[in-house]
Amino acid sequence: MNSICNLALLGFGNVGRAFVELLERKRGALREQHGIEFRLTGVASRRLGWIADPGGLDVPALLRGQFPAAASANVRDWIAAARAHVVFETTSLNRHDGQPAIEHLRAALEQGAHAISANKGPVVFAYEELRDLAHARNKRFLFESAVMDGVPIFSMFAETLPAIDVRGFRGILNSTTNVILEQMEAGATLEQAIAKAQALGVAETDPSDDIDGWDAAFKTIALSNVLMQGRLRPGDVRRLGIRELSPEKVQAARARGSAYKLVCQAYRRGNTIVAEVAPKPLPLSDPLAWVQGTSSIIQFETDVFPGLALTEVNGGLDATAYGLLADFIRAVRS
Amino acid sequence: MNSICNLALLGFGNVGRAFVELLERKRGALREQHGIEFRLTGVASRRLGWIADPGGLDVPALLRGQFPAAASANVRDWIAAARAHVVFETTSLNRHDGQPAIEHLRAALEQGAHAISANKGPVVFAYEELRDLAHARNKRFLFESAVMDGVPIFSMFAETLPAIDVRGFRGILNSTTNVILEQMEAGATLEQAIAKAQALGVAETDPSDDIDGWDAAFKTIALSNVLMQGRLRPGDVRRLGIRELSPEKVQAARARGSAYKLVCQAYRRGNTIVAEVAPKPLPLSDPLAWVQGTSSIIQFETDVFPGLALTEVNGGLDATAYGLLADFIRAVRS
Repeated sequence: MNSICNLALLGFGNVGRAFVELLERKRGALREQHGIEFRLTGVASRRLGWIADPGGLDVPALLRGQFPAAASANVRDWIAAARAHVVFETTSLNRHDGQPAIEHLRAALEQGAHAISANKGPVVFAYEELRDLAHARNKRFLFESAVMDGVPIFSMFAETLPAIDVRGFRGILNSTTNVILEQMEAGATLEQAIAKAQALGVAETDPSDDIDGWDAAFKTIALSNVLMQGRLRPGDVRRLGIRELSPEKVQAARARGSAYKLVCQAYRRGNTIVAEVAPKPLPLSDPLAWVQGTSSIIQFETDVFPGLALTEVNGGLDATAYGLLADFIRAVRS
Repeated sequence: MNSICNLALLGFGNVGRAFVELLERKRGALREQHGIEFRLTGVASRRLGWIADPGGLDVPALLRGQFPAAASANVRDWIAAARAHVVFETTSLNRHDGQPAIEHLRAALEQGAHAISANKGPVVFAYEELRDLAHARNKRFLFESAVMDGVPIFSMFAETLPAIDVRGFRGILNSTTNVILEQMEAGATLEQAIAKAQALGVAETDPSDDIDGWDAAFKTIALSNVLMQGRLRPGDVRRLGIRELSPEKVQAARARGSAYKLVCQAYRRGNTIVAEVAPKPLPLSDPLAWVQGTSSIIQFETDVFPGLALTEVNGGLDATAYGLLADFIRAVRS
């Protein structure tokens, strides 16, 4: 592609900003290694409204918090005004129906743009629809950053592991509960541990999506449905959060040589997939027991690899932003 | 590709046989998922000579040990007689100059076939030459099985991690020494541990390539040169094997809460890459310390991921064979 690629960004929170910064940092590499030139022509959020400039927005100004006036009335007008070739969706998860993110991505694909999401909702509620829509429009629907920041899980299977059967997986995929359980091991109550995780910037103001296992369950569904051709919905995952755990219970497990972790797993059983999220005391001989802080792990069982694991040590915003960047390069060069 | 793809296999030891068996098992998946039809038209080894039949060899007979007479005089005649589209090199490592494997792969590329290797020698001694030759002939030189069986390391970076900088890595990449060090932890002398590893089928009759760190050093060079644009040769790696370790030393480390592992590592230092293979006592908080038996791990430091690790649990022949299969699919669909 020799022309300039117009990028439009939905959501301008921590992930969106980290992505814009990474784009600037990688501008030279994209040009030299992939022949990609780009400009940011749209930014939108609930607070900012629908901002677009097909000539290119002033990125340093946006990062300083200086925004031009919003001019579009809705997502479809905005995509048209931005003349977007790629739309990035980084708004937060709606665990009831995945909206409005699904509608954003549908609009992108219908208007001829690639649709890239860091949001699990569209993958959980509309994977098949968006995949098929992208295919029909000869565009890509990609979402590497939806699970384990930008660690290449979906693309590893799609691009490097052809003709393989995934039989199941288990993993530690939610950082907030991982940090909280470590605090409880050190003696904190659940409430104290949540406050600490919030102070560290790891937990949200309302941490219930994490504490009650929703975030972990959504990741489990996304992995199951994409990598194991499942059709799981949120109600299909046995989901147990960490509210019932006391520091005493966590510490007693540790004294017995086990570490409590919120374990995500899904395995094929005949024609179905049995999926579960639950806190479990893991012996220290289990690699999952050693995943600390904001690190995460996923271990797959396939027909040729009895155990193939990906670990991310100290994951963060940069990695999530990188997943969006990698999806962008994948989409444009395909 | 709608025509039939002719495959020719150099080396018919454990890896070659496992690959042929896997090919048969995956025949349906290759046809249905990738539109690939194939037949085995050449098999060669020092013992068997150069066997070729462009109409297709009788694979079940080969696996029973029934071989037709060899008819070709050398590798180039043999590739021509087999009308090979893809040549697979699975002979054993020559740590002095990588021959004759390099010449086999050069012949394959020059005669218009893709060149796929499970052998580290050609990657260590001739990576740039074979890569450039493949590029000039519009063919592929691939070698996923050369390191960590068929775990997608090279293809992960090539296909799923665009525009990333690899700053370094550390890993446990040699199974034989890993098994031997565990035996020594349990009290065996080096000699007893080697005998045990040989009885388990993990160590060769002459285990010096493993014991002295050559295998690990070659893997370290292959990774450095391909993923970090290094130009290391065997003499550039500080290499310390496990001969100097006593069971007492290994057990004393264990008593202090550390596990001895043969650690491979390479990091950028300015314009050079500093690479090393050496036994080290690792604290149990280090994920590398928990890699047991024939399992292996590699952890990368990149500009966007502070730590991104791939772990293979209980690696084996099937995984190595799968790496060849995945390279085959990659080559043919590219």
